Amino acid sequence: MKKEINPWSNELVKDYDYLFQDFGMQRIGPDLRAKLGEHRLYRRGIVFGHRDADVFVAAALAGKPTAVMTGIKPSGEFHLGSKMTAEQIIHLQKQFGSTVFYAIADVESYADNGLRFEDSHQNAVDNVADLLALGLDPKKTVFYKQSENMHVANLASIFARKTTLNTLEALYGHQNLSLYLAVLTQAGDILAPQLDVFGGPKNVLVPVGVDQDPHIRFTRDLAPKFKEELGLLTPSATFHRFFRALSGQTKMSKRDPLSMMTLNDDEALLKKKLANALTGGRATAEEQRRIGAEPDKCVVFELMQFHFYDDDKDLAEMEADCRSGKLLCGECKAIRLKHIRAFYKKHQGKKAKLRAKAEKLLEVPIGFRKRK
Amino acid sequence: MKKEINPWSNELVKDYDYLFQDFGMQRIGPDLRAKLGEHRLYRRGIVFGHRDADVFVAAALAGKPTAVMTGIKPSGEFHLGSKMTAEQIIHLQKQFGSTVFYAIADVESYADNGLRFEDSHQNAVDNVADLLALGLDPKKTVFYKQSENMHVANLASIFARKTTLNTLEALYGHQNLSLYLAVLTQAGDILAPQLDVFGGPKNVLVPVGVDQDPHIRFTRDLAPKFKEELGLLTPSATFHRFFRALSGQTKMSKRDPLSMMTLNDDEALLKKKLANALTGGRATAEEQRRIGAEPDKCVVFELMQFHFYDDDKDLAEMEADCRSGKLLCGECKAIRLKHIRAFYKKHQGKKAKLRAKAEKLLEVPIGFRKRK
Repeated sequence: MKKEINPWSNELVKDYDYLFQDFGMQRIGPDLRAKLGEHRLYRRGIVFGHRDADVFVAAALAGKPTAVMTGIKPSGEFHLGSKMTAEQIIHLQKQFGSTVFYAIADVESYADNGLRFEDSHQNAVDNVADLLALGLDPKKTVFYKQSENMHVANLASIFARKTTLNTLEALYGHQNLSLYLAVLTQAGDILAPQLDVFGGPKNVLVPVGVDQDPHIRFTRDLAPKFKEELGLLTPSATFHRFFRALSGQTKMSKRDPLSMMTLNDDEALLKKKLANALTGGRATAEEQRRIGAEPDKCVVFELMQFHFYDDDKDLAEMEADCRSGKLLCGECKAIRLKHIRAFYKKHQGKKAKLRAKAEKLLEVPIGFRKRK
Repeated sequence: MKKEINPWSNELVKDYDYLFQDFGMQRIGPDLRAKLGEHRLYRRGIVFGHRDADVFVAAALAGKPTAVMTGIKPSGEFHLGSKMTAEQIIHLQKQFGSTVFYAIADVESYADNGLRFEDSHQNAVDNVADLLALGLDPKKTVFYKQSENMHVANLASIFARKTTLNTLEALYGHQNLSLYLAVLTQAGDILAPQLDVFGGPKNVLVPVGVDQDPHIRFTRDLAPKFKEELGLLTPSATFHRFFRALSGQTKMSKRDPLSMMTLNDDEALLKKKLANALTGGRATAEEQRRIGAEPDKCVVFELMQFHFYDDDKDLAEMEADCRSGKLLCGECKAIRLKHIRAFYKKHQGKKAKLRAKAEKLLEVPIGFRKRK
């Protein structure tokens, strides 16, 4: 059995097969894909694995209330990984009418990065403005800060009662107390949408990167232990592949600002980041013209595939021009930059108009229990 | 070095000397006692140890704002141990004008006893009514439920960052995650009064039973680590001796209802509990008349000493009548019962009138951060 994946590392995991073979993850097959609805993330196999997503879909299609849960650490700007998950939850919200629970994980930011709540607030507003600009419907979304959602903190305490240190050590290795507590808090985030104050037990889908699977398994094991007490249903999940850092060497990471694009990047920065991105180009222009380049190695190709080309025709053309040697990498990058810039211009324009709304959405702590 | 005290056991610790010899606890000497002000708990050496209580007193006497922090698990009725601590904090409030922070530890009740928040609410109201009847000034008290005080939960998360599992294991032995989390939450309770939202850094005194010393030491070690970030001052503590269970064999414990008196006991129950209480009596009445009984062994004597006789003359008379053999234990118990009943009648009368006020005090969650 392969060694467990480490959700806190930025090591690039290339082989996910063991998750299906040894850890019971399921592949998204044609049937489920059809039910999830048309989206490039499913079509291109970027979101490729799941646990009980079919159960979630069946509940939604049967007209039951459902929820989608995700979140962000407000430690910086919205990067492309966050954008990808955002696009998926927006699609799920439209497809199934699910309520989105969006956690601003400021407690985690404080615990991990020492970022005080006052300081993470402006990041949180900026992140929420991105979500709104991408199309998230605030009327069907519960935005909350971990530092203000007592329900999540209380669940973490309650869950600790049925969690052994041995379980955590088996899942995560010997880690510090802060990380173990973060695991309990994340379980609280995932299961809180089923509390009475949020409408009671329901099917919840959590779209995550494949590295987060240990958290998902932990939470799925926990829910049945509180079936009687809280009526919790086992949550479902989908898993997406990693987008590589622009260098091609690691996962994208907030810890390395040049490793990724953020939705706030200006034209100069976009240009610089793209110029430095790893390609599948050959040693010389002559060689590339002659035998073509390798899109499978190219981060720019992945960038367009994951994030910026919705139309498969655009992607196919890019691939063909690469393989044939018709375009050199510099020429190719110039074309993609133009496309990316157009997206940014539109997005940043929308976002500027939505900032005040984002500010307002984070003004009032939500969901505090009203006593009868 | 003697084995660490276990704060979660109801084992009766009889020998505290090692705490002074090996763990740096200080005895309350005549100077400090004089400054603390006249109270039977100090005068009779029931509150006998401290850590930096002199620092707290000096700050208070210098006119600086101070706080006193304590709390209760709302898992049942107010028992005599809670009454004793209540009397001490009321005295401190009057003596030094300190703000009292009173935690209703409902998260701990849920985690330890599975008592849901809805169910512990009525206990909490009842406990607060007792506090008001005993004389706690609600205008200088912050009552809060752990389940509603986000500041405490957030501190627990922040503290986890600078707490190793090894530290906790050294202090408490190998315990489960829930207890470790409870330790962090208690540190949050103790240090929260110093947050900006509660007026910023200040000297805080925590009156506890001597078995709680590991929590105090843990919290005192933690505070300086957040000196720069949160400006936390190291908290002070006083320590009181245990009152024995009425059987004389263990600590008083909520887990054993007949082991203790609660402030809700009716006359019949008081009589029954007192009848069953361990005394220092002899094998026969004849022997007791002849050589007298042993007040040092008698729980009823301790009951009057700790809880019900404020006047040393009453206690001295009780002791003399016991040692001389003048009173047999049955006769003695009848006299004490009369005195205790008088206290209960007065207390329960006051309390009935204060219940609505207690309900109101717990209506609104306190201290949520207002954003600027």
